Parts: sequence; C-alpha cells; structure tokens
Amino acid sequence: MDTHITELSALLGGNGVLVGEDVSGRSARIWTDETVQAAAIVRPRNTNEVSEVLRYCHAANQPIVVHGGLTGLVDGARTTPSDIVLSTESMNKIESIDKTGRTMTVQAGVKLQHVQEAAESEGLLFPLDLGARGSCTIGGNIATNAGGNRVIRYGMTRDMVLGAEVVLADGTIVSSMNDMIKNNAGYDLKQVFIGTEGSLGVVARAVLRLREQPVTDESVFMGVDEFDKLPTVLKQMDQRLGGTLTSFEVMWNDFYSLMCEPDSNHQPPIPLDFPYYVLVEAWGGDADTDRQRMESAVESLYEDGLIGNAAIAQSVAQRNAFWAIRDDVERCMTVHPTFVFDVSLRIGDMENYIEEVNRRLTKEFGTYRIYTFGHLGDGNLHFAINTGADPNDQHPVERCVYEPLRAINGSISAEHGIGLEKKQYLDISRSEIEVDFMRTLKKSLDPKGILNPGKIFELNC
Amino acid sequence: MDTHITELSALLGGNGVLVGEDVSGRSARIWTDETVQAAAIVRPRNTNEVSEVLRYCHAANQPIVVHGGLTGLVDGARTTPSDIVLSTESMNKIESIDKTGRTMTVQAGVKLQHVQEAAESEGLLFPLDLGARGSCTIGGNIATNAGGNRVIRYGMTRDMVLGAEVVLADGTIVSSMNDMIKNNAGYDLKQVFIGTEGSLGVVARAVLRLREQPVTDESVFMGVDEFDKLPTVLKQMDQRLGGTLTSFEVMWNDFYSLMCEPDSNHQPPIPLDFPYYVLVEAWGGDADTDRQRMESAVESLYEDGLIGNAAIAQSVAQRNAFWAIRDDVERCMTVHPTFVFDVSLRIGDMENYIEEVNRRLTKEFGTYRIYTFGHLGDGNLHFAINTGADPNDQHPVERCVYEPLRAINGSISAEHGIGLEKKQYLDISRSEIEVDFMRTLKKSLDPKGILNPGKIFELNC
Repeated sequence: MDTHITELSALLGGNGVLVGEDVSGRSARIWTDETVQAAAIVRPRNTNEVSEVLRYCHAANQPIVVHGGLTGLVDGARTTPSDIVLSTESMNKIESIDKTGRTMTVQAGVKLQHVQEAAESEGLLFPLDLGARGSCTIGGNIATNAGGNRVIRYGMTRDMVLGAEVVLADGTIVSSMNDMIKNNAGYDLKQVFIGTEGSLGVVARAVLRLREQPVTDESVFMGVDEFDKLPTVLKQMDQRLGGTLTSFEVMWNDFYSLMCEPDSNHQPPIPLDFPYYVLVEAWGGDADTDRQRMESAVESLYEDGLIGNAAIAQSVAQRNAFWAIRDDVERCMTVHPTFVFDVSLRIGDMENYIEEVNRRLTKEFGTYRIYTFGHLGDGNLHFAINTGADPNDQHPVERCVYEPLRAINGSISAEHGIGLEKKQYLDISRSEIEVDFMRTLKKSLDPKGILNPGKIFELNC
Repeated sequence: MDTHITELSALLGGNGVLVGEDVSGRSARIWTDETVQAAAIVRPRNTNEVSEVLRYCHAANQPIVVHGGLTGLVDGARTTPSDIVLSTESMNKIESIDKTGRTMTVQAGVKLQHVQEAAESEGLLFPLDLGARGSCTIGGNIATNAGGNRVIRYGMTRDMVLGAEVVLADGTIVSSMNDMIKNNAGYDLKQVFIGTEGSLGVVARAVLRLREQPVTDESVFMGVDEFDKLPTVLKQMDQRLGGTLTSFEVMWNDFYSLMCEPDSNHQPPIPLDFPYYVLVEAWGGDADTDRQRMESAVESLYEDGLIGNAAIAQSVAQRNAFWAIRDDVERCMTVHPTFVFDVSLRIGDMENYIEEVNRRLTKEFGTYRIYTFGHLGDGNLHFAINTGADPNDQHPVERCVYEPLRAINGSISAEHGIGLEKKQYLDISRSEIEVDFMRTLKKSLDPKGILNPGKIFELNC
C-alpha cells in the first residue's frame, strides 16, 4: 500500500493524497459517529487526474470508492481499511453557464447548493432540491439519481443531466458533454452511469439543464379524512394547476402530530384531527392569476368533500413555516436508534401496504413508534421507525417494511439507492435475471471489479 | 434458410411466418417505393415467442431486424435479402391501464395513436405525438427515443417509459416492468435499451407513464423580425406560462411562405413579411384565467418590441389551422428528390450555423430550395432541401448540413436516430472513444452481432 500512496502522490502532488488522521478524522456518514476507514484519500483536480488515478489503481487491482458529500443513507460510500477513497472535493468548479441555452457545465464535486445559487444568480433555476443540499455534491446526485420534493414536475437527477464526462475503471475518459435537450446520435452514454452508485464509472464533469425561475410560489396545507380521497386530490390538483404543480407531499397523522407537539417550533396550520395532511406547492408565472387559480382549486376540492380543511400560505414566512413541518425529518429521529425507510409502490396499493407493515411491526415488537410521510405524487413513502433501544432491531424492522413489497412489485428504494444497506433485500424488488443483467454491465465495464466493490450486488454469484 | 423458415414456423405456427410476396409486397419505408427484402417476416404474439425466435436465430447466427411501423427516416430498419424481419404487428395489445397510478401496460406493436386514444378514453394523456402517430408503434418510439412537438414540457419517449420487458440477443427475457415514477433499486435497465435502435435488445412490452389531460389549449402565432429576439421570446414565454408551455416551434420565412402560397389550403394567420414565425402552445388547467395569461404574455412581448405581430387562436378550428401550417411538412417535399434533416445545436449557435449551411449550399449548387423549421425550444432544427433532379446530390447536401456541426458540438440527429443513413457522419457528433464505448455495450449484450446489424456504427473496426 505504501508504494501505491507514493505513486499516487507522485501523480497528484503531495496535497492530493491524504493519509493517517487526515483520513480517520473524517466523518464517514451523516447521523452517525463513524469515521472513514481507508488506506488513503486521493483528491484529483480534474478529469485527467481522475483518469491517472484509475489507470494506476486498475493496473494494481486496487479498489476505489468515490466520496462526494457523504450524505447518502444506504452505506453506498462505505469503505474498508484497504480501499482508496477518491474524493471529488478538489473538483469543485462551475466551469460555465450558458444563459441562452440554459445549461451549466460543472465538475462533479460542486455542491448542490452551489449549483442552485449559481443558476439563481443568472436568473435561472436548477430544480433538484433535497435537505442535504449544503453538503451533497452534484456528482453524488448523479451517481444516486437523487430525487427530492419536486420530482412530480422536474423529474429526478437523470432528467436534469444533459451530458457527462465519465472515467471508466481502466482510466479511459468517455467524454459525452452533450448540451442539447435532444440528441439521438447513437447511444445516450450517460444513461448507463446515472444511478449506478459509482459502480460502473466515475462521473467527473456534467452538463446540467437549467430552467426558468418561477415568478410565483403558492403553498397550501390541507387535511383529508380518507386515504381513498388522496389520489383524487392529487389528480384534481395536477389537472387544475396545469403544469405548475411542483410538489404533492403527504404526511400521516403520526408525523404531523409529532411535528406539532408543544415543544416543537412548529405551529399547526390546520387542526390535528385529520388522518392525512397534504402539502401542495405550485410554481407559476403570472402574479395576477396564480393565487386565484390555487384558491379556486382548493375551493373546488372542499366543495367536492375531498378535503376537510385547508390553509393557503399568505406570505413567504408562512410558506416557509409549512415546509419546515414537512422537512423537519430529524425530529422523527431524536430517539436512538430510529430506522429510516424509502420505498415506492403504486398509490392503489399504499393503504393496504401501510396496514400490513404496521401489522407486522405489532406482531414482532408489540409497541413501536412510526412516522409516515412521503412524496405521494411519485408513489414514494418514507417511514421513520423506533422499536426501543436495541440497534439489533434493524434487520427485523427492515423485514417488516420490505417483505410486503414483494407481492405488489414495490421498490425497496425509491430514491436512496441500494448501497450495502439494502443489498440483502434487492431480490424483493428485482429478479435474478435483472441482477444478472446488472452483473453483465459491471463485468463489461469494470472487469476487475475495482469500482465501489460489493455495493448493490455481489459481482460473482 | 429453408430450414430456418421451417423451424421458425414450427415455433410460431404457419400464420406466424411470412415469405415470398407476403414479404416483397410490403413497403419498406415511407415516402419511397422500396419494398421489403428479407428471407422471411416472423410475427411473434408475445414475449415468449420473441424469446424463442431470438434463441433460435442466435444459435443459427441469423441476423434479425425488428420492424414496427416503418416510419423511421434514417434507414434504421433496412434489411438485406438474407435477414429475417421480426415484426411486432401481432403484439398489439394494450394489456392494462391503471387510472390511479396513471400508467398503461402495452405490447411493443401497439400504434402510438392507439395508445393516445386509450389514454384519452380514461380521461388521461399520453403526451408523445408525431405526424406518424397512425402508423408508428410504441416499440419503435422506444427504440428510437422519439421526440415530437411537446418535448419542451413532457420530454422525449425516454421520459414517458417507466418499465420495459426486453429480449436479449440470446433469447433471455429481462423483465423490468417497473410502474413507479421513482425506483432506484439497482440499475435502471430500460435506459440501456431506449434509443439504441434495436441494436441491443428487442423491447417486447413496456409500462408507459400517463399524465392528466389539459383543460385548456391556447395557441398563438407570432412574427419576429430578428433571430436574436427568439431566445428572449422563448425565455419569457417559458417563464410567464409557468409550466403550461408545451411547444415552441419556429418557422423561417422560406417555410412559412411556401405553406401560405395561394395553391395551398392554408390561410396565413399573420402577414408574410417576417423572417421568423413562432407557434407557441400552452396546455393549462384553468378555463377562467388561461386565456388572460396568454394574452398578457403576448401583449408584454409586443410592448417590449420582441414580436411584431401575433394571432391568438380564437377557436379549435383556428388552433388546428395554425398547427396544420407547422405540420404540413410534406408540402416541402413535392419536388423530388428532397432531402430532410434533423439536427440539434445550441440556440446561441443557430443563426451562424444556418448562414454557414446556406453558404456551403450556394457554393456547391448555386441555386437550391431550402425550408427551415424546428423545435427551437429543444435546439432542434429541420431542413428540407432540394438542389435539382439528381438523387446523387444527397451526400454533397448532407456534407453541407452536417460538417458545420463539427466545430460547434452539434448533433447530426436530434430525434430521428442514426440508422444507416447517418452512420457515415457519426464522427461529426461523437468521438471515437464514445463509439468504442457503444461497441463495448454491443459486444457485451449481442456478442454475435445478430440484432439490426450494421446500424449506427460498424461493430468491428
């Protein structure tokens, strides 16, 4: 290993390689005390340096794990003491913004919030947004195909990437920096790498698609008394808001009640007696009519008996207060250990599925705490579950949440990915033939298996 | 070959295999008199039969070309007399529609128009639309990642496909019929196949994402006097229409004047003295305010001097008349031979590029006719060019159109694909390393090269 470190230091310069406490002093994952275990952290500054690192490691059969902001939740960036970490922290340049073409060219290590702010400073919008915005990197967003709150309108990260420059395991640079919305000149190579958790190549640069900034921002908080009404509320909002709908978030009473407990900072926008709460956001372009449109949509839902109460945000402060309730997920996690989940399923299966999860948890644990919320418009549910003080409950809880997805073709990962944490459950959502197909791609592009080894699936089975 | 036909007939039944005049009597491509040349046409009825056909052909090293509606424009489905055609015409079932989940499950041979109508009958929308809707199949749309007029809002076919069932060259069925908007459980396998022109696998079934039907449909025809104003018109419309904008089509004066000639059926909505015409469409959800929103957007453009004239459609008939002008592309093609192009580039490069194409055409041919139009919002330009009676002018014309894209990283194919027709120009838009990467995928998934051989690139170089 010392030879590797010497050689890599020669490639990158002394400042480009960290060892010892500069490695072990780093946090390995948010919401834990774990620190990074690795032989070294290498910090290339550009695509060519990434290529040189990979060429060297490929020849040496040296495993490489890419680190972005380390905000992932599935142990997708976990390392062993003999791994080398490739950190994108020195690749943090926004290279250019094309205002007319509405694109931004970036290095992979740029933080999401930096991308958002740079777009905004040019009067444009990069619509991806998640709680980790201040720490996560665009490279990590691409590697995990990150989602967030506005998928219903703008799609996931995949839909916001026009081009990518990827370094293959052997150091080959495949530069496919397309900056056009339409380009069918041969295979769309970036698609092979997006959402593959760093297992097929290292994304070094990307071209991002920017959008127009919204002129108006309307948020409404609504109470609903039956699950069956939620899809109709979604459908009517989607239709009446005509393309301006950006979010359709649902909170179950367990979640909302926790957020509105007296010791929290949140004021309940509407009373606590509904089983379901919906937070809808619409971004429009016409200050004269957008409020009226939202009001008449809400009135119509009320007249049809689909909602029992509603509060439309009357100010930016009120809008922010509504969203603070939805975003205060850490309040679910004050009791340790709390296990957090991210699944997706058909909306039509959702009510029965949640009942089944609770039935299994009751049978297994008797008492437990569960908070349920999610991006209903995308079929994406989150749970935060606490069953007591025993961290060994994790796997039994996971089985209660994941197993019922098998029969209904649900997904054990809507947006967080598989990493190591969900690997043992992948067969619930994917067939052996699908996983074999993933292996075919992996073996074709990374035949020595040096890139993020052991994540998602075992290479040899 | 007789053995193959006997064996395939045994697999599919007599009606499943066509030979002789049933093959040679078929049109091979729209807008030509060519007929299909192939040893046989096989017509599997389901995924298992596709698998059996491929398993047999793989063992026999027999090339296979998939035929959908044969509306492609780049010779992507061309066959040789020794090929076997796999037609999806007997795989034309809409299997199910999930109204709550807003998805449709289909076989690959269902015609696009049939998909559109089935969605509409459930009060939903499948937003992909192109002139070939009555003939093209959803499988062909997926294989070519078809675009059309509404890409700016709904994306290309890739963005409308949630799941796919694909048969690999050796007959392996990879069924990945995801029906959720969010699913990050391992690699997103469909992405490998979409837009690869049938060269990596045969899409047999798919899950399509449906949307809400629009409540309102506003169209406006505008005249613009300088190219530099077009990106600002696009930007302002995109911002003010706040997510309802579905199309931003631009016609150059050459195109518009041809459409409005006295012998055509079209009435000019505005005078013929502008160099550029824009047709904007917005689909909204609020009958009370959408017209007002469009009117104030148009007024604002006029006040800012960005447009010189505008007509807002006052009826469905007028709206259809506006679009008939844009869609009457065949009027450009009454003189034979007319060569049709589909390129994409940054909007900021567009004016110089068009000048350069015309400079080259003038230098090469002296006189010629050119009609210019396209989906400006996507950077997508179309040309229809006639240089006289000589069909051998095709390649010199292609060079005039494609070569100037090299320096500006433009694409020789925005939405039509590469097929055979553009294969010799692929190096203008893609590097040798990118094409090598395509070969790596091809060799990994179709090692014998039996699927649509010779299209897009040469397998061995």
